[in-house]
Amino acid sequence: MDQPEKANMDVLISEVGPRDGLQNVSSIMPTAAKKAWIDAAFAAGITEIEVGSFVPAKLLPQLADTNEIVSYARQIKGLTVAALVPNSHGARNAIDAGAHKITLPLSCSESHSKANLRRTHAQVLAEARTIAEMISDLPAGSRPHFEGSLSTAFGCTIEGEVSEGKVATLAEALMEAGCDEVGLADTTGYANPSSVRRLIERIWSSVGKEALTGIHLHNTRGLGLANAYAALEAGLTTFDSSLGGLGGCPFAPGASGNLVTEDLVYMFESMGLSTGIDLERLFAVRRLVQDALVNEDFYGFTPEAGLPLGFTPTTPRPTN
Amino acid sequence: MDQPEKANMDVLISEVGPRDGLQNVSSIMPTAAKKAWIDAAFAAGITEIEVGSFVPAKLLPQLADTNEIVSYARQIKGLTVAALVPNSHGARNAIDAGAHKITLPLSCSESHSKANLRRTHAQVLAEARTIAEMISDLPAGSRPHFEGSLSTAFGCTIEGEVSEGKVATLAEALMEAGCDEVGLADTTGYANPSSVRRLIERIWSSVGKEALTGIHLHNTRGLGLANAYAALEAGLTTFDSSLGGLGGCPFAPGASGNLVTEDLVYMFESMGLSTGIDLERLFAVRRLVQDALVNEDFYGFTPEAGLPLGFTPTTPRPTN
Repeated sequence: MDQPEKANMDVLISEVGPRDGLQNVSSIMPTAAKKAWIDAAFAAGITEIEVGSFVPAKLLPQLADTNEIVSYARQIKGLTVAALVPNSHGARNAIDAGAHKITLPLSCSESHSKANLRRTHAQVLAEARTIAEMISDLPAGSRPHFEGSLSTAFGCTIEGEVSEGKVATLAEALMEAGCDEVGLADTTGYANPSSVRRLIERIWSSVGKEALTGIHLHNTRGLGLANAYAALEAGLTTFDSSLGGLGGCPFAPGASGNLVTEDLVYMFESMGLSTGIDLERLFAVRRLVQDALVNEDFYGFTPEAGLPLGFTPTTPRPTN
Repeated sequence: MDQPEKANMDVLISEVGPRDGLQNVSSIMPTAAKKAWIDAAFAAGITEIEVGSFVPAKLLPQLADTNEIVSYARQIKGLTVAALVPNSHGARNAIDAGAHKITLPLSCSESHSKANLRRTHAQVLAEARTIAEMISDLPAGSRPHFEGSLSTAFGCTIEGEVSEGKVATLAEALMEAGCDEVGLADTTGYANPSSVRRLIERIWSSVGKEALTGIHLHNTRGLGLANAYAALEAGLTTFDSSLGGLGGCPFAPGASGNLVTEDLVYMFESMGLSTGIDLERLFAVRRLVQDALVNEDFYGFTPEAGLPLGFTPTTPRPTN
């Protein structure tokens, strides 16, 4: 598939708000507002967005327009359009709509997998094989990137600890099933900087460095940015985050779920790493989405505190 | 001075809530409630507390009882009693009250120093020399530990950038004036993980590793824990924080100032580092102080989200 050209960036922020954020709030955002969000985010410099999930509309009415949103986003030249798929049926629809990247979650905790996806590990791996075959049947140049996401990789609210050996075994199984890559996801906010570094090294030793470049972190216990810094130090380069910290699995009032895009971009830019994203424009996206979701809580410190006096971002400010 | 015996800890959490926290909230906490806080914090395993500041009561009525609080805290065997002093007059009072550790702030931004302390660098350094002489005149065994705190070390809301060279020069000047140690303070929340690591290395190369072991971080832009992890990786072992993130220099609603003790302790304990502090008891201290400061905001994610299922702290739970 005609992969969009990547800008000159040190780290890639993959915005998951339109999928992970909207999936976990009660408001249903109008399709036009989603399109405006995607347009504004791209204009701010975000080059990868998970725009929706191919699940039955009756399960997630918030994402019922995913097909239309993927088609719309695909027209934006330079944007990588990602979508979540729960199974091969969803993958078929994602491919037909033209997604550049499709992500299949596999919950490392089998209890969580059964409770959340109603599938055993063996069943999810069978779906992964079916999807990989579906993709390999496509003409070269039109194949989406296929990621297996290792959710609850750092622990589970049903099982508690998930062993690193089990996560590594599942990473190998996903790669053997035909995924292009695996991703680590701290679905429950159980990760800490030490476990992040240790698990990355463990997965790399199982499937190789090129098969794991990204991580999806939550901020449930406030460690989101510390964990992102640990992952950066380990050598990862792709970070999921959500505008305003929307979504994730919030456990309690004040305890946001997802990593906040605004704070994550500020951290990297302040460290001298280019995200390709303009912070002032990103704050404008936040205001736009806040206006469209007036009943939802928005998290993040940097938008409230503002940028430091004399702050010079690493990514040059756009002139247009 | 009969230094309290240190427990077997990997990192030392220095609780600054009773000083830095209470100084920056509008409520005036009754002396009895402060004593109850200190008792409960010590029972939870906190072994160093900055209990007050020796400033004129008319400037900071919240801390008018510092003398009584220091005397009270000094009776707790095993607790290091720290106090802030703005000048040699305050240091005299701190010494007379029996503080184990006295901290003199020197703002690296001279504009901030003049605006906040109404003193030039030269004047603060002269105070440091006077305090050091005062301490050296005391009988051996009764001398408090004297720290010079390099505030606005990562930038200033008046001057903007503060050069690392200037901070290093001031660190040298404080050590030459007779301080036992210097500390880094991110008064304005301008630090990031890279600047933290870089400045620590810079100060070490100027004054030696033993002269800088601690850091005071704020969470203004959400980077507090990431910065603490960076400082830990660099090799620092002492971390200031405030219960519930009370105080600091909050810039806006929702943007807490100080690093939250509860989240910091959780991060270290989850990483396999012993803080000597029991998290469940620390949450009880939080509830105690919340009940005594009903009009103040308390920050922190871990107390809201709770500990992960099956979480085993590094510090063994107390049996008594």
